[in-house]
Amino acid sequence: MTEHRHEAQHAWFLGPRAENADLMERLVVEALRDHAFWRRGFHPEEGGFIPERARRSEGYLDATERLTQELSLLLARLKADLPFFSGRYLGHMVNEQTLAAQVGYFATMLYNPNNVAAESSPATTLLELEVAADLARMVGYDPRTAWGHLPSGGTLANFEALWIARSTHDLPLSVASAAKELGVRLEASLPEGEHVPLDKLGLWELLNLSPSAALDLRDALFRSVDPVDARRALDAHSLSGVGYQDYTQQLARTYGDPLPAATVLVAASGHYSWEKIVRALGIGAGRLVNVPIDSRCRMDPDALWATLRAQQAKRTPVLALVSVCGTTEESAVDRLDKIAEVRERAARELGITFHLHSDACYGGYAAAVTWGKEGRRRTAEEIRQSTGSAWPEAGWVEAMTALSETDSVSIDPHKLGYVPYPAGVFLLKDRRARELVALDPPYLVPTPGISATEERFLGRYSIEGSRPGASASAVWLSHKVVPLHEEGYGHLIERTVVGARRLHAALAAADLAGGRAVMLPRPDINIVNYIVRPPDAPDLAAINTFNEALYARLSQRPGARPPEYYVTRTRLITPTYDGAIGPLLQELGGVTREEWAAPGGGLVVLRMTVMDPWLAEAHTTDHVAGFVRHLAELCAELRSAPERRR
Amino acid sequence: MTEHRHEAQHAWFLGPRAENADLMERLVVEALRDHAFWRRGFHPEEGGFIPERARRSEGYLDATERLTQELSLLLARLKADLPFFSGRYLGHMVNEQTLAAQVGYFATMLYNPNNVAAESSPATTLLELEVAADLARMVGYDPRTAWGHLPSGGTLANFEALWIARSTHDLPLSVASAAKELGVRLEASLPEGEHVPLDKLGLWELLNLSPSAALDLRDALFRSVDPVDARRALDAHSLSGVGYQDYTQQLARTYGDPLPAATVLVAASGHYSWEKIVRALGIGAGRLVNVPIDSRCRMDPDALWATLRAQQAKRTPVLALVSVCGTTEESAVDRLDKIAEVRERAARELGITFHLHSDACYGGYAAAVTWGKEGRRRTAEEIRQSTGSAWPEAGWVEAMTALSETDSVSIDPHKLGYVPYPAGVFLLKDRRARELVALDPPYLVPTPGISATEERFLGRYSIEGSRPGASASAVWLSHKVVPLHEEGYGHLIERTVVGARRLHAALAAADLAGGRAVMLPRPDINIVNYIVRPPDAPDLAAINTFNEALYARLSQRPGARPPEYYVTRTRLITPTYDGAIGPLLQELGGVTREEWAAPGGGLVVLRMTVMDPWLAEAHTTDHVAGFVRHLAELCAELRSAPERRR
Repeated sequence: MTEHRHEAQHAWFLGPRAENADLMERLVVEALRDHAFWRRGFHPEEGGFIPERARRSEGYLDATERLTQELSLLLARLKADLPFFSGRYLGHMVNEQTLAAQVGYFATMLYNPNNVAAESSPATTLLELEVAADLARMVGYDPRTAWGHLPSGGTLANFEALWIARSTHDLPLSVASAAKELGVRLEASLPEGEHVPLDKLGLWELLNLSPSAALDLRDALFRSVDPVDARRALDAHSLSGVGYQDYTQQLARTYGDPLPAATVLVAASGHYSWEKIVRALGIGAGRLVNVPIDSRCRMDPDALWATLRAQQAKRTPVLALVSVCGTTEESAVDRLDKIAEVRERAARELGITFHLHSDACYGGYAAAVTWGKEGRRRTAEEIRQSTGSAWPEAGWVEAMTALSETDSVSIDPHKLGYVPYPAGVFLLKDRRARELVALDPPYLVPTPGISATEERFLGRYSIEGSRPGASASAVWLSHKVVPLHEEGYGHLIERTVVGARRLHAALAAADLAGGRAVMLPRPDINIVNYIVRPPDAPDLAAINTFNEALYARLSQRPGARPPEYYVTRTRLITPTYDGAIGPLLQELGGVTREEWAAPGGGLVVLRMTVMDPWLAEAHTTDHVAGFVRHLAELCAELRSAPERRR
Repeated sequence: MTEHRHEAQHAWFLGPRAENADLMERLVVEALRDHAFWRRGFHPEEGGFIPERARRSEGYLDATERLTQELSLLLARLKADLPFFSGRYLGHMVNEQTLAAQVGYFATMLYNPNNVAAESSPATTLLELEVAADLARMVGYDPRTAWGHLPSGGTLANFEALWIARSTHDLPLSVASAAKELGVRLEASLPEGEHVPLDKLGLWELLNLSPSAALDLRDALFRSVDPVDARRALDAHSLSGVGYQDYTQQLARTYGDPLPAATVLVAASGHYSWEKIVRALGIGAGRLVNVPIDSRCRMDPDALWATLRAQQAKRTPVLALVSVCGTTEESAVDRLDKIAEVRERAARELGITFHLHSDACYGGYAAAVTWGKEGRRRTAEEIRQSTGSAWPEAGWVEAMTALSETDSVSIDPHKLGYVPYPAGVFLLKDRRARELVALDPPYLVPTPGISATEERFLGRYSIEGSRPGASASAVWLSHKVVPLHEEGYGHLIERTVVGARRLHAALAAADLAGGRAVMLPRPDINIVNYIVRPPDAPDLAAINTFNEALYARLSQRPGARPPEYYVTRTRLITPTYDGAIGPLLQELGGVTREEWAAPGGGLVVLRMTVMDPWLAEAHTTDHVAGFVRHLAELCAELRSAPERRR
């Protein structure tokens, strides 16, 4: 049975040597001809617009010549792009795309549907909703109450998550002011379960209602008064309605000296785009609080608890907590199950609540590993049998299962979903929250039979307007061929984990011209990080220089010969990596923490993303062995010839 | 010579009846094979990973079967999408895409470059910069000091424009506070030309420095102190650094009672996404001020002057002014030349300055009409000779030329650029301003020879992270084959204007079963709007119902038979259309302004976008005549059979 998956994997991609080129060509040509004949079959009684005669005119021939000529120039220029398809490319998080995704994208691009609204995409808006429901199920949401759509990528998905979190956080204040203005009495349910009159709550309590309690309040207001009045009154007391200056002043007038501005807690290992997002939203980079990580680069639940207590001690509300499922640097998976426990405890013991978001842009698809073919969760033991390794720990499965405890999740199909750019996914557990950012074109005329607010007007709830229906098709077709369970993406991602562990083990054991690789812990998914420790490097600076020199030989430089293998690198800096650096410095030997933490310090780390499923075992060509051999050669070369100025 | 362009046009598209299917298939297969053999030529000494034997295993055959089967299901489902390629589709702003764009997209998608940074896209990041430079030249910017890139679409381009405008507007405040903290004395240049010490300026003056004066101040600060200190101090006094609550409080502490929050002025005809953007940025929907339009649906320069005076009278700073080049509803082109004059006068006489943005998402490509092949501007008279019509007026050319007066422009190649979704463009006249939103990953290690801040790290300045290099290729190849002047896009768009005018004239003259079409003015580009006035409709409600019924028969309904022709519709409402509604109501007859302005009122308008270049003249099939005939039939049918409940 496992053999069957393995065989199927051979058909999922074009292949490192384009082994499936004939299959792909057949499908691409099929899609193109099918489209062409659809055009011809549309009102076949009509004459054409491009007569055959025109196709031998001077102008036509010139234009065709130009197209052919410029295309061949483009094809030539594209050869400067990177061999993502090859097991020799082990740098950033990109590999081949599935055949299904590539063909699905191309086939749909010919129709060019715009998924902003079903009016411009009757077919593909439905595919987008199906894809979002697939992924909602995969993370454990109930697709009937959840909602999702495809923004262009993870940064926008995260942006939408925080935009909604900001709106939900402030919602009780807006509802309280609106209710007062409209003379409505409402009750709020506190985190402890108690029900109290809304007008009895102070600023701190209002900012610490749970997201669902906040949405319940909004529903109650809409039930109590004319929706038009409710909407207007809420808008007159919301940040997005009145703007930050007046909103801040309103708060000060209503509640006296306001509390400190709310913070966004993000795992220290979080992506740097979170800073971009809080800056753009006006929340402010200074309100971003990093939660320390542990030695596995996961958010430390004890540190989270301490952070929350510190926030409470300063009476600082928490707007949202961002946990990471698959860090971009290490593929570390936060123990979301433990984080969810801390959240519950904080509500109970500290009276603090917040929106919980999982940034699963990289790791989200790995949840497919936890699903059996027949729709039940697999145990860690079952998965271990399938990978033939000690991976995963039980806690990993619990962390993945706990995705269902979040309020929102972002996932990038264009990462571990193996589909072409652009494809991000934003998932919201309680779809009511999308109304907080919804906007209708004022000129939209309600059409009998088609409601303006219905599911199929995706642009209503997203920051983007026009967007390619082809993205939705690509993901949809890929999910059909490579399903979101043990026989599809689950298998594929398992193989990459196995490959990453082979690489990790080979590097850990390697003799690198007398030096050795100091390894970061075995990854939670498939990104391998290490530092090459040359035997004679006197200090941290020398070690960093050596690893930089290795990176320079293992990456593409403009004008230079392509390297034998491609890796990337990162730098572990303080305070981000304070929780993880200890064992590494110790193993490096002769490097002090002070040296590392000094300005201009940090530790340069070589980083390899194993998305290639073929690395899991030795083939005719074994890229794991080949890379380690090449790395040893480079180390020898660097030690004999000191770094030249480049 | 014009004949030559006309002949070339036959080669630019696949064609309404896929007349160029053979050409497209040849190029697509060429691109695919070229890519496949590139893979095979990469380390040809290595063995493959998918042995031929594997291709007859059960698992492989099952997976292939599934792919083939699901693809054919997808192809079937796509048939529900709309026939954008046909002259019968005259609804939203989408038509065929150029062959070059489709083939360029597909060819590049096989490589899947990520234009977030050149490290993942050595080839296509350069293409993106070339495309941005092409378009910068087209709008009259100097590509050496301007900057641009490709976000996923117009909404994000507009978002980035306002994000930068917000940052530029507040910049003098941040610089003033930072300079004070760092003990630096700086001079500011006032709109009137005077130079004064920065610490002598009050809040109003600081918020009314010109964008370039603000950027000069920042440069001066960076020249005076260590850039690290400058950056930190600016951040400690900026909205994006400290967040809106603390920023508002800082302002109040520093300047006493702050001024009213700054407003964003937008043409009343502007896209509704501007509201979405000010909401997300925290500027607030309430700070959006609509500038009235005239009877041609263009921003009224006199009304703009009056609005600016009113802002000044209330001491309300203006953050930005958004003018529209090609409204989504009417393709109206603001007289940007006159708006730029008002801006200068406001600086001179009112001491008010602001960021001027042109939302040219729809109309931007029409600037290609103003460029001769040899690189000089064409006169209105020259263009009129080429269109054989009264279009354009001299003012239109002046408006297009005045795009160079703006601080930023957004353009959607996926609209009048005829390329597939997603492709928006953001252009910034003074590239220094992008630094205000720039963010470096903290772990980025400067590499010898590759600067972190250099041109090729596009993600540094944009809200999105990963993005498809294929979009850049598509636009690039399309510009190569259909150049941005009279022989390429200029010709193409001229033809659509001619087609739109044919349609306008035919509708204006049509007998519609005893009724007639009340036409909005001839469009500035190619969107035709009208109201069918049945002879016996007693009031506005009846007229609206009649036009809604027409729309229902001229659009795709789920489950219903496809219509003969596709149109869309909009609704002219108060106060947006106050400046344009008068002549229409008069011509409709028997409809009062009160009726129109009443709640639930508004005027339903049928709207047709003519992006199809083949409508410019009668072919074997004349879709202009065909549509008018069909419309008359529908009117007759509707009058004889009163509307059934649908």
